Amino acid sequence: MAETDPKGPTGVTGEPTPARRGPGRPPGRRAGTGETRTTILDAARTEFAARGYAGASVRAIARGAGVDPALVHHYFGSKSRVFIAAMELPIDPDVVVDHVFAEGPEHVGARLAATFLDLWEDPAARERLLAMLRTAVLGDDNSATREFVTVELTTRLADRIGTEDAPLRANLAVSQLLGVALTRYILRLEPIASTPRAEIEARIAPVLQHHLDGGPRVA
Amino acid sequence: MAETDPKGPTGVTGEPTPARRGPGRPPGRRAGTGETRTTILDAARTEFAARGYAGASVRAIARGAGVDPALVHHYFGSKSRVFIAAMELPIDPDVVVDHVFAEGPEHVGARLAATFLDLWEDPAARERLLAMLRTAVLGDDNSATREFVTVELTTRLADRIGTEDAPLRANLAVSQLLGVALTRYILRLEPIASTPRAEIEARIAPVLQHHLDGGPRVA
Repeated sequence: MAETDPKGPTGVTGEPTPARRGPGRPPGRRAGTGETRTTILDAARTEFAARGYAGASVRAIARGAGVDPALVHHYFGSKSRVFIAAMELPIDPDVVVDHVFAEGPEHVGARLAATFLDLWEDPAARERLLAMLRTAVLGDDNSATREFVTVELTTRLADRIGTEDAPLRANLAVSQLLGVALTRYILRLEPIASTPRAEIEARIAPVLQHHLDGGPRVA
Repeated sequence: MAETDPKGPTGVTGEPTPARRGPGRPPGRRAGTGETRTTILDAARTEFAARGYAGASVRAIARGAGVDPALVHHYFGSKSRVFIAAMELPIDPDVVVDHVFAEGPEHVGARLAATFLDLWEDPAARERLLAMLRTAVLGDDNSATREFVTVELTTRLADRIGTEDAPLRANLAVSQLLGVALTRYILRLEPIASTPRAEIEARIAPVLQHHLDGGPRVA
């Protein structure tokens, strides 16, 4: 499915966008003038840690870095993308949600299952996700990640589902996905850990479809 | 539903059994002669850490404690119960599986959802489960817990489901439950964290039923 989507299903592991590559940089180099970019990301981590995701602003991040807010927008495009870069997330919820709904609501379960497994079966992405999940499970200090997931993933998914109970449906789909991550990749329970990817995909797709779109609809 | 089952749904938080209470002890005291019991549990933790759950034996635990294996059986009844006591688990998979299947296979989703939420909504049990889950997520050192869940929970559930793919079905049901634990009680995503328990129960029951008993059956 991913081949029909030029951005790739996660919005991050595909071709770098101009903003991510930075002006005048050859493809494959990291985005932005190294030093300015690093300064902005350091300021962003400080701001997100202090004020959470919802409370942080591009303006305050720019102030912390001693640059103009327009430069932050130039390098990253949005608060969401600053967060993704600062936390080195292998996923852009905005792109994922577009991708998951690209064939219409009757295919969201299958597309979400495929996108999730694409991500977790990729060793580099998996390592980042594992680190995030470990921090979140350990942490008192997971409010920024929680707010990011809530604001950027739950809200976007819920907007596309469109029912009154859509935010809960989005959370339940996320719960099934994180449960698979936990049992297959972290606890490595058998047989789920060594079951072929295609079988897992086929098993969870209808459940995700049910969570997002099935059962009694509360409009 | 739990009131029809004298043991209680988790098999641990109900009335203590004679073996758990220990010979000649008043009800409400911890099982066994304090010192002997502590010695056995210390030896058990050492044995489980060294050899995992599958590799550990009651005989070796008794040897480590300097007691007769019959005394270990007398105090705890089985290797599973020694593990539960040593790890202070708030759940006995044997009792849970009996309880979940008590009304027949068409009710397993609802009963498993109710049992799971009974456990997690109880503050003391939740604290133990959170500690276990944190250790398991962090850990390289989670093989004993993993083997215990695999041997005692997955296998027992799978035996009752009876299809060839039953172990995978059991894992998938566990994945949905742990995903709810993660999103509702650990990450505290909204709205799932503040949704009333009855609503969560109603949402996950059909999904658990599907994982355990629905879809194409591979006999």
